[in-house]
Amino acid sequence: MEQRVRVLIDCVDNKGLVYQISKVFYDRDLNIENNREFVDKEQSRFFMRTVVTGNFDISELKNALKEVIPKDANLQVIEPKRKKIVILATKESHALGDILIRHEAGELDADIEAVIANHNTLKRLVERFDIPFFCISAEGLTREEHEAKVIKQIDKYKFDYIVLAKYMRILTPKFVSNYAKKIINIHHSFLPAFIGANPYKQAHQRGVKIIGATAHFVTDDLDEGPIIAQDVIPVNHRFEWRDMQKAGRDVEKIVLSRALNLVLNDRVFVYGNRTITF
Amino acid sequence: MEQRVRVLIDCVDNKGLVYQISKVFYDRDLNIENNREFVDKEQSRFFMRTVVTGNFDISELKNALKEVIPKDANLQVIEPKRKKIVILATKESHALGDILIRHEAGELDADIEAVIANHNTLKRLVERFDIPFFCISAEGLTREEHEAKVIKQIDKYKFDYIVLAKYMRILTPKFVSNYAKKIINIHHSFLPAFIGANPYKQAHQRGVKIIGATAHFVTDDLDEGPIIAQDVIPVNHRFEWRDMQKAGRDVEKIVLSRALNLVLNDRVFVYGNRTITF
Amino acid sequence: MEQRVRVLIDCVDNKGLVYQISKVFYDRDLNIENNREFVDKEQSRFFMRTVVTGNFDISELKNALKEVIPKDANLQVIEPKRKKIVILATKESHALGDILIRHEAGELDADIEAVIANHNTLKRLVERFDIPFFCISAEGLTREEHEAKVIKQIDKYKFDYIVLAKYMRILTPKFVSNYAKKIINIHHSFLPAFIGANPYKQAHQRGVKIIGATAHFVTDDLDEGPIIAQDVIPVNHRFEWRDMQKAGRDVEKIVLSRALNLVLNDRVFVYGNRTITF
Amino acid sequence: MEQRVRVLIDCVDNKGLVYQISKVFYDRDLNIENNREFVDKEQSRFFMRTVVTGNFDISELKNALKEVIPKDANLQVIEPKRKKIVILATKESHALGDILIRHEAGELDADIEAVIANHNTLKRLVERFDIPFFCISAEGLTREEHEAKVIKQIDKYKFDYIVLAKYMRILTPKFVSNYAKKIINIHHSFLPAFIGANPYKQAHQRGVKIIGATAHFVTDDLDEGPIIAQDVIPVNHRFEWRDMQKAGRDVEKIVLSRALNLVLNDRVFVYGNRTITF
Repeated sequence: MEQRVRVLIDCVDNKGLVYQISKVFYDRDLNIENNREFVDKEQSRFFMRTVVTGNFDISELKNALKEVIPKDANLQVIEPKRKKIVILATKESHALGDILIRHEAGELDADIEAVIANHNTLKRLVERFDIPFFCISAEGLTREEHEAKVIKQIDKYKFDYIVLAKYMRILTPKFVSNYAKKIINIHHSFLPAFIGANPYKQAHQRGVKIIGATAHFVTDDLDEGPIIAQDVIPVNHRFEWRDMQKAGRDVEKIVLSRALNLVLNDRVFVYGNRTITF
Repeated sequence: MEQRVRVLIDCVDNKGLVYQISKVFYDRDLNIENNREFVDKEQSRFFMRTVVTGNFDISELKNALKEVIPKDANLQVIEPKRKKIVILATKESHALGDILIRHEAGELDADIEAVIANHNTLKRLVERFDIPFFCISAEGLTREEHEAKVIKQIDKYKFDYIVLAKYMRILTPKFVSNYAKKIINIHHSFLPAFIGANPYKQAHQRGVKIIGATAHFVTDDLDEGPIIAQDVIPVNHRFEWRDMQKAGRDVEKIVLSRALNLVLNDRVFVYGNRTITF
Repeated sequence: MEQRVRVLIDCVDNKGLVYQISKVFYDRDLNIENNREFVDKEQSRFFMRTVVTGNFDISELKNALKEVIPKDANLQVIEPKRKKIVILATKESHALGDILIRHEAGELDADIEAVIANHNTLKRLVERFDIPFFCISAEGLTREEHEAKVIKQIDKYKFDYIVLAKYMRILTPKFVSNYAKKIINIHHSFLPAFIGANPYKQAHQRGVKIIGATAHFVTDDLDEGPIIAQDVIPVNHRFEWRDMQKAGRDVEKIVLSRALNLVLNDRVFVYGNRTITF
Repeated sequence: MEQRVRVLIDCVDNKGLVYQISKVFYDRDLNIENNREFVDKEQSRFFMRTVVTGNFDISELKNALKEVIPKDANLQVIEPKRKKIVILATKESHALGDILIRHEAGELDADIEAVIANHNTLKRLVERFDIPFFCISAEGLTREEHEAKVIKQIDKYKFDYIVLAKYMRILTPKFVSNYAKKIINIHHSFLPAFIGANPYKQAHQRGVKIIGATAHFVTDDLDEGPIIAQDVIPVNHRFEWRDMQKAGRDVEKIVLSRALNLVLNDRVFVYGNRTITF
């Protein structure tokens, strides 16, 4: 039966890897539809993403590949199928709205299982799209108590990624480690500039001539996770911080959607604090 | 006699300023060739740059303007003429070379009085353009001793601005205060990201997807002065830090020249830590 | 009663205009909140947009201004209020969706009176937002017959602008002249490159390394109207034309919304085939 | 003896190509330092650029590769060495100057054999760098006569590429076919917008909000050759066409140098009217 899989390999670099891997494909008469490789020489690390088609058994292919790559290699053989995501948000609608519109148009390679917010502001918008919305207010709760409630709701779903679409709360290390490499955030600055609260105010005070946004995986360190995508726009002295915020929203939503698109298509490797995006 | 001057005013904002100032021009039958205004509402500060032509006495005009603007206003009435600059450099030629080429083409609105470097590397390049080059080595000297020698050489010239064209030494507060608002630096990062040494290495380690450069006035705080111009270019995982450095050079030189162009045409106001650029 | 108006003037350039106009404001003790001027020297044309506040009678102000500006000057004194728009679309949802989300968030300075499309595809999306949707199919109709039906529907509304949010039909000169300077279109190329049908296919065939989008007023000549805003993104050999189309959608929607924002805030002058945007 | 070569292959796409090629490398115990592939599905065309190191005989490697790739494949096995270029210019110094500065800094992977211009303006600049300069005036000559003299001078050199650094004359088909795929031009517009004479004037007249530059191989059709690199900068209504020209120069020189860098490092495939740039 004609199949198509994405093969993702990252491992210590070795002479002959491309040959050995392509031999596995060749021996099974597979067609290479797309192939991207990269060797990080400084780290001596090999990354490869190949889309192959043909008649084959996935687990047999996986085993064959395992035999030719290093023992501790990361190997994924992925059947392209719609991923599932849960979105966390707060009050701002631009990033969430952009995802909802793409979803509605069939341009997001994912199903949105639910939107969870710590305010009720976005309820109407989300429900317009017939997507489950849950408001879990943080009022009167400790950070841990609130997160426990959020986790309880999240864990009702089977999902691949949690998307923080301008979720304005800091996550505890416990929450983050719970969903390691599964949380994607959009930060409203050109990281590492303006880490932390109100980056637009910081940007305005510093008098920068360009502002930006950064989509990244969330790790324990605030705003320090591996960067997936960034973009910027020019500003000038006429921009008060509110104007920067307004203009910045367009960058935020586009960068988040661009990053999501990469992640949902299995185009992102994370290695140390960096990403390789094919 | 037909004259043209640039009038630059910055002061506390007041009702009627535009009227009062334009009345001064009107009463003298001056022609407004170009007029830019900006009010920083947060700071309640008024900025105006007007190019006027006509038959008038400059000091009379200046006095008339003084009468209609606040006592503590900054007023400049500038006859457009070529400024003079002194350039400080180290070993890299891209920023310096870009200025030399523009100078040679008559596209830099300034004369280069001299280039002073702490290494001999750029001597040949500078002398190809028949511009005085002085190597003042820092070897075996304290920072203060070295700077004293540099200052001694600089002060032989009458100049408007000192341009740090990749001068890789940190200036002392004494040096900076000596030439307040007269030193323009190009920093090889998108400030405030990657302050300090080797920003490209820092950028590579952080795994950013965009790198940039920042031209700014130099103040006491390292890399903290008012920003004049910034620009960026995309990078990706294929860029080792040396590749970032190489690609970054193009941004550095363009941003520095763009900033120089603004400054040399009296298009930059500095207020607090920000610039207004018309 | 404290009021705020936007004063827009464009006229033949004359000595003393700024003085005469600011005197009108000064004599009425008005506060200038924002002032932008531009003189097109080649055309000898003066443009000014001023936001003034104070206690005044609008028609008295207008008359006073008329007395100091040339007879054939264009003068508008506009009270800032939400404009009304009618949107025309076809099947693609990205540009329309972006407007709908901004509208929902209260970030669009306009009310959407209706969406009219020549297909039914977008009906569900529009109605999710409780906005009237009308499908006026062109099937079996001549261009004139179809337009007559569209005009009939449009004219049920009082509106300031017609927004073509990827309306994939060519308008007749009659339609265009019916709504002169009131139709804003987003063209999916960096005009004047790739005028006409399927610009992404054209761009792919030409092998460009950058694609873009252009928001412009619609005039009789296809894709030749005054440009309001443009933006671009890099592409490379990996982009098939469908990929360009997909990537281009983000530029299209952002450029259209940016142009809309300018127009809805009375920040755009049209002069000849060019715009002055303050 | 340890060697390093760049292997460039483009041919009809076939199952097993990556395997067959990497087997050739593997059998010779070569190390793959860098590998980029691309399949143009529409054209069913395979492109591969691999940098391999090891102990091997180049002609033996070439023969081995020939056996596994299609008969009519394009195969190049290139030892990285400095290329040689001849530059044609007219009066403007920015693009030429940028190349000269890079050359002087050792950052251009090429030797400049000579600069030939149809005016004397750039003589002094070029000779400052001790590079042969020849003025071949076109005055009083037919296009063919002038070109004959230019060709005569060019052909005194062994060179890899002719670089048109703002050479403001149209080349005859004869000249172009003489040096097929060897002429690189910088056009001062974002092609295909504003083909032909004075693109900045055209851009100004059209009222665009972005201008650009395009580096491309020269073919018979004016400004229609395969594009290597493009970039843009924003402009606005304040830019007269002379300002656009001035601002555009920075883009022109950077784009030309970026394209040159790609070409000199054998990173560009030309296929039909498009380039694949690795």
